[in-house]
Amino acid sequence: MYGPLLTDFYQLTMGYAYWKSGLAEKEACFQLFFRKAPFSGQFALACGLQDAIDFLRGLRFRDEDIAYLQKLGFDEKFLAYLSNMRFSCSVDAVAEGTIVFAKEPILRVTGPILQGQLVETPLLNMINFQTLIATKAARVCYAAQGDEVIEFGLRRAHGPDGGLSASRAAYIGGCDSTSNVLAGQRFGIPLRGTMAHSWIMSFPDEQHAFDTYASAWPGACVLMVDTHDSPSGIKNAIKTGNLLRARGQDLLGVRLDSGDLLQLSKVAREELDAAGFAHTKIIASGDLDEYSITDLKKHEAPIDTWGVGTRLVTAHDDPALGGVYKLVAIKDEPNAWRPCAKTSNDSEKSTLPGLLQTRRFLHDGKFVGDCVYGLSSTHTSLGEETDFVDLLKPILKAGQIHADLPTIAQVKANAQRELACLDDRFKTIRQASPYPVEVRS
Amino acid sequence: MYGPLLTDFYQLTMGYAYWKSGLAEKEACFQLFFRKAPFSGQFALACGLQDAIDFLRGLRFRDEDIAYLQKLGFDEKFLAYLSNMRFSCSVDAVAEGTIVFAKEPILRVTGPILQGQLVETPLLNMINFQTLIATKAARVCYAAQGDEVIEFGLRRAHGPDGGLSASRAAYIGGCDSTSNVLAGQRFGIPLRGTMAHSWIMSFPDEQHAFDTYASAWPGACVLMVDTHDSPSGIKNAIKTGNLLRARGQDLLGVRLDSGDLLQLSKVAREELDAAGFAHTKIIASGDLDEYSITDLKKHEAPIDTWGVGTRLVTAHDDPALGGVYKLVAIKDEPNAWRPCAKTSNDSEKSTLPGLLQTRRFLHDGKFVGDCVYGLSSTHTSLGEETDFVDLLKPILKAGQIHADLPTIAQVKANAQRELACLDDRFKTIRQASPYPVEVRS
Repeated sequence: MYGPLLTDFYQLTMGYAYWKSGLAEKEACFQLFFRKAPFSGQFALACGLQDAIDFLRGLRFRDEDIAYLQKLGFDEKFLAYLSNMRFSCSVDAVAEGTIVFAKEPILRVTGPILQGQLVETPLLNMINFQTLIATKAARVCYAAQGDEVIEFGLRRAHGPDGGLSASRAAYIGGCDSTSNVLAGQRFGIPLRGTMAHSWIMSFPDEQHAFDTYASAWPGACVLMVDTHDSPSGIKNAIKTGNLLRARGQDLLGVRLDSGDLLQLSKVAREELDAAGFAHTKIIASGDLDEYSITDLKKHEAPIDTWGVGTRLVTAHDDPALGGVYKLVAIKDEPNAWRPCAKTSNDSEKSTLPGLLQTRRFLHDGKFVGDCVYGLSSTHTSLGEETDFVDLLKPILKAGQIHADLPTIAQVKANAQRELACLDDRFKTIRQASPYPVEVRS
Repeated sequence: MYGPLLTDFYQLTMGYAYWKSGLAEKEACFQLFFRKAPFSGQFALACGLQDAIDFLRGLRFRDEDIAYLQKLGFDEKFLAYLSNMRFSCSVDAVAEGTIVFAKEPILRVTGPILQGQLVETPLLNMINFQTLIATKAARVCYAAQGDEVIEFGLRRAHGPDGGLSASRAAYIGGCDSTSNVLAGQRFGIPLRGTMAHSWIMSFPDEQHAFDTYASAWPGACVLMVDTHDSPSGIKNAIKTGNLLRARGQDLLGVRLDSGDLLQLSKVAREELDAAGFAHTKIIASGDLDEYSITDLKKHEAPIDTWGVGTRLVTAHDDPALGGVYKLVAIKDEPNAWRPCAKTSNDSEKSTLPGLLQTRRFLHDGKFVGDCVYGLSSTHTSLGEETDFVDLLKPILKAGQIHADLPTIAQVKANAQRELACLDDRFKTIRQASPYPVEVRS
């Protein structure tokens, strides 16, 4: 869907300069990682690899791309080189849904430097964003303690595919369903949704609106009760619930979308229980995130389902994962990697040199610590006897698919397994403990 | 590119319920507005209408959409209704690049309630995001006081079209250029970009890297000087500059991407001037936004060009415009609008009823105040004699284009004219004065 022009212009000016200097096919290695976990947390959930690999496999300069670059004044021979180019790098990556920590490589690209450079921007774009949202969703679902969580952020997401990839990543991170119909169609994510305030407002009164909806959806009736006044909305919902029962159906839920959710959910639960609707669920929404859900849970708000939108799909309190993609080694001579590092004035912007792998150690099914080690180093002291797994696996070899990517259901299952292996102290929403990562580059 | 499934599921469940109750074609009016300007500011720059109108004009349920909805269990007759449906609403909107304030309608949709409802989500998605970014860009460029501003946020944007629409909106808001090559191709936005740290790191030393780049791009040489140490990078850049001069070319610029930009830009300016490179520009980047640019300007940092990425394209300090789309009137009888309003428990979530227009008054070419008035009200007292403009104009009539939309260049020019008409006190980055908006609904 997107081609090689989905990149920064400097990738092309550098690409030309590599080509012009005879260096375009020099073998180089780039690694993608982040320096700091998002949301003042400790971990991230890797996501976005499927889109990244689809992009790389389809990488072609089409005629209209070449024509545009020609208009910009690029050298004809360089353009001929680009139009014949096919992506021939090897890619190693951690599986989608894997927990990763700061400094650990998420993806490694090895091959001709011009190609490795060109794909920096799209790889960062796709992996930064989806990893950010999968991580946010994991936090929201952790706060919800197993309750149902619905993602419904499309209207506030950053453009159509900002919404679409957010829905995918949120589902992988733990959400149960989405409001985004296109995400349902494309990814098979279960859909949820009932009514907006406009439904109520389009009728002369709320009771009439509720009853009409119940007639149209007798088997799937959830009523939004806050259009005018939530306490009276709850009473009207109960009346409609009685109507449904008289027809052999039931009121599945009521939704609170504004006001003091703690107090209103307690009122709703009491009123529903008193009227014999103990099984009717309470759905809450309204600028929710992991922090407000944690607080509502702490005060035992009787909320069954959490609708989370804006703050999830925009990663509201930290809307960009600062993932970077750095040259870590280059072959000045065949078969001899020269490790490269950036030694910036900002020490936190310095990078680790060399091709790295992450080894994760487990004990009793829990992650106990990681070691980021150089592939060229001898690492007998890493403790090979214990239970461990090396996270980066080959995905593309010389541009060709090496291992089929998992389905979204498999990715979601992987993410949930991974999260279960991470002790609560590393996942807690506020002030999580640092997870031990040793670097031996 | 996107079809009607780019929506929330509840639009379809409500749509079915309207249809089932015989209400699908009842005439309704929805208005899109925001309740609070973003970034603790006072204004927003309307953007996103082009995508919204393209979406509406192409609205069709394709066979695969119907097949998916069938799988979800929707009624066959309802699906037949959807597959025959063509968008037949009228749309009035403020032109892209128009300054808007809280509560003022940006867009109004009038027509069959089912259709008006269905398009709520995509309209909000497109207009919320692009308005947010155009506004952010206007603020960034205001802080830069006429200096060149380059947008280069693609790698941290929310997915590919999160980046693409951000580039478009940032250009409209005032940025001079982008790094996003696809945005250059699609929208004709000028491109900028030179080199990344990886270019430097791929060579044995910085001087070699600079000289090689200068040979490839003798007429467009901007050197990134902070890979190892900015002060020594500046000295190396000057050496390369002398090499260029010996060949009849020149060093166009140096780029600082980390560290203390105030101090480093002063060092760079001094060293460049002392070496006879007084015309060489200093480009600064590194998590910049309107706040840090304002501070650097206040301390007279000798920076000529500002590269702004992450914090612009993610609207970092306020990553979602809370635009809403509300039912404001419905015709229970033909030719008789019944105004509708939401009277929520949260008074700030209440809405203004009725079809509204915004009248903007001017004096000496400056905006002096707005009046949001009901279209049905008599408004002789609005002061018709003075200079004013009504902001909402017809765009679609019964689904057909009424007025051709302006080109992106025209939209950008409109935005810059609008911003010039808004007094500084309403635009200042911190603690802007509230602009007078009177509501007479």
